[in-house]
Amino acid sequence: MDKDQFYMQQAIELAKLGRFTTTPNPNVGCIIVKNDQIIGKGFHLKAGLPHAEVYALKMAGDAAKDATAYVTLEPCSHYGRTPPCADALVRSGIKRVVIAMQDPNPNVAGKGIKRLKDAGIEVMVGVLNEQAEAINKGFLKCMRTGKPYVQLKLAASLDGKIAMASGESKWITSSVARQDVQQYRAQASCILSTRATVQEDNASLTVRYDELPDEIRKIYPQENIRQPIRVIIDSQNRLTGNENIFSQSGETWIVRKQNIPIIKPNTKLIIESSAQNQIDLVELLTELGKNQINSVWVEAGAHLAGALIEQDLVDELIIYYAPKLLGHNAKDLCVLPNLTKLSLAPQFQFESVVAVGDDLRIILKRK
Amino acid sequence: MDKDQFYMQQAIELAKLGRFTTTPNPNVGCIIVKNDQIIGKGFHLKAGLPHAEVYALKMAGDAAKDATAYVTLEPCSHYGRTPPCADALVRSGIKRVVIAMQDPNPNVAGKGIKRLKDAGIEVMVGVLNEQAEAINKGFLKCMRTGKPYVQLKLAASLDGKIAMASGESKWITSSVARQDVQQYRAQASCILSTRATVQEDNASLTVRYDELPDEIRKIYPQENIRQPIRVIIDSQNRLTGNENIFSQSGETWIVRKQNIPIIKPNTKLIIESSAQNQIDLVELLTELGKNQINSVWVEAGAHLAGALIEQDLVDELIIYYAPKLLGHNAKDLCVLPNLTKLSLAPQFQFESVVAVGDDLRIILKRK
Repeated sequence: MDKDQFYMQQAIELAKLGRFTTTPNPNVGCIIVKNDQIIGKGFHLKAGLPHAEVYALKMAGDAAKDATAYVTLEPCSHYGRTPPCADALVRSGIKRVVIAMQDPNPNVAGKGIKRLKDAGIEVMVGVLNEQAEAINKGFLKCMRTGKPYVQLKLAASLDGKIAMASGESKWITSSVARQDVQQYRAQASCILSTRATVQEDNASLTVRYDELPDEIRKIYPQENIRQPIRVIIDSQNRLTGNENIFSQSGETWIVRKQNIPIIKPNTKLIIESSAQNQIDLVELLTELGKNQINSVWVEAGAHLAGALIEQDLVDELIIYYAPKLLGHNAKDLCVLPNLTKLSLAPQFQFESVVAVGDDLRIILKRK
Repeated sequence: MDKDQFYMQQAIELAKLGRFTTTPNPNVGCIIVKNDQIIGKGFHLKAGLPHAEVYALKMAGDAAKDATAYVTLEPCSHYGRTPPCADALVRSGIKRVVIAMQDPNPNVAGKGIKRLKDAGIEVMVGVLNEQAEAINKGFLKCMRTGKPYVQLKLAASLDGKIAMASGESKWITSSVARQDVQQYRAQASCILSTRATVQEDNASLTVRYDELPDEIRKIYPQENIRQPIRVIIDSQNRLTGNENIFSQSGETWIVRKQNIPIIKPNTKLIIESSAQNQIDLVELLTELGKNQINSVWVEAGAHLAGALIEQDLVDELIIYYAPKLLGHNAKDLCVLPNLTKLSLAPQFQFESVVAVGDDLRIILKRK
């Protein structure tokens, strides 16, 4: 790891501090270094608040002159909710800017880099690019494709079962695993689920601050944790408004095919009126993308899981495996009705495996 | 790690060199140390050949006087296939013997230790006991319970499926995973399977030297690899003798309920005549134990897997997971007909997780 990578790594760690709050904005960290000393640090906390560079420059003050700035994402060049960071860097007298990656946002997309270069600043792009990609999977995918990054969470026994034949499923995984889920929920722009999960499990689909891992609560006060929007597919208009979910804090969006709203506080209707009977998942994700939902955390049953997989809409699988066997009569992890040949099986690749209490958490990416 | 542990660790590494050949004997390693120098090394290769201590003492020669010996298992005190090692240690003038664990073999069981102590040798027992247990799981379990150590190998998709509805199953896991299986086969006293696997998959259930991992072939010449005995359950007498398995090198034992032998070279009949229709698995394992089968590597379908699990006869699960999904119509990992309540689900605990090519190998122990 060379010096540029060393400082960029620290900027990336800073950027991560925003991961529960920046949506729909990206996570960005900035470090300003002069004579091998860090003289400025900043990260983006929340849309509407200043960008990482602004905080770092403020901390550095006049010392920023002739210093090097490390930024995890190309500085913006446009007037959005805040003035352009590229201009602030130029004004500060910074001599060199190291950027992990270009911003795919069409309002930036190289213009920030050009602005810096035009002002005579030495610019280097691509340092720890992969790590910088990893902290903004949602923002980047949405900017590039218009659709959010989809994480499908599953919890199963070793033999891939999610409930007994009777429906009994409380609990297959341990409480530690269920707490681990909370931190993923807390990072997502929205939680996607279905009418069945909401009614049958009476799920509240909220982030419960008390259940977040200790190391997160140590850093983040309760007011810094958002409730992700709950997006619930209800194609048959069966939700009544009396379910648990409607009395939780945070917004609930109901996805129906017709204009039949549920009159409840913080509840909104999304109409997906494709010709078919089912909700068109591609259209739904596109609609979510248009609403600045960058990342979707899916917690649902085997049917929605299977439909998302079959249509190749899942970017990441997060599977919690409990070390037990439930046998052939128990309920299956995902319904894939059209899969008849082994060669057509959806392929993933293992990204990480971690012990979570007595269970394993396995993360896979689409291959 | 203190000095005793340091040398014992090396003795354990030596012991492992016998893991493909010692059955039914245990793996044993011995190191002789004097003035912080290793002056003797030995391990047990094969029943009938000298024990680890004999090789190590031979290498040390007269220098063994006043030295310390590290042995991974209590030295034997009885005349078996070879004379007692405890006597050899006494004769050599060794001053101190460090032993990882007592031998549960009723012919030894503390008598070796007593023999050494009676001769005035300083004896220490229990150094790296757990690691020493781990290299002789089969021998130790069989000595303690009369039944072999049972490892059940499974290979499945992420959703716990082992074949498509059509029966198509070639291949779910990668060739690297299938090669990895070879090293486990090579260490087992026997491979347990069923008539269905032998006929439907036309499995040969042999160790294929060419497919063993490189690092094993580097150390072990082909002649040092045994063919484990193939034990095939055939309760309905449906094997004909024309299956692939009967033309392979190594022994085949057929388990039937009646005295209907298959007349083929190296083929033997085991009659398990319990009153019920199925083969009684407890009786079968007891019979294998009596035949000095210390460890059983099971490769079979969902029914035998389920029956072994349901009767709590599995010591270790080895599951290869391929990073793909096969869906609800595909075939299940194990048949557990009597499991109806979540609280009754067989519980295991994760021991290790390793990437094997594109797949994962997960090992679990019975909880």
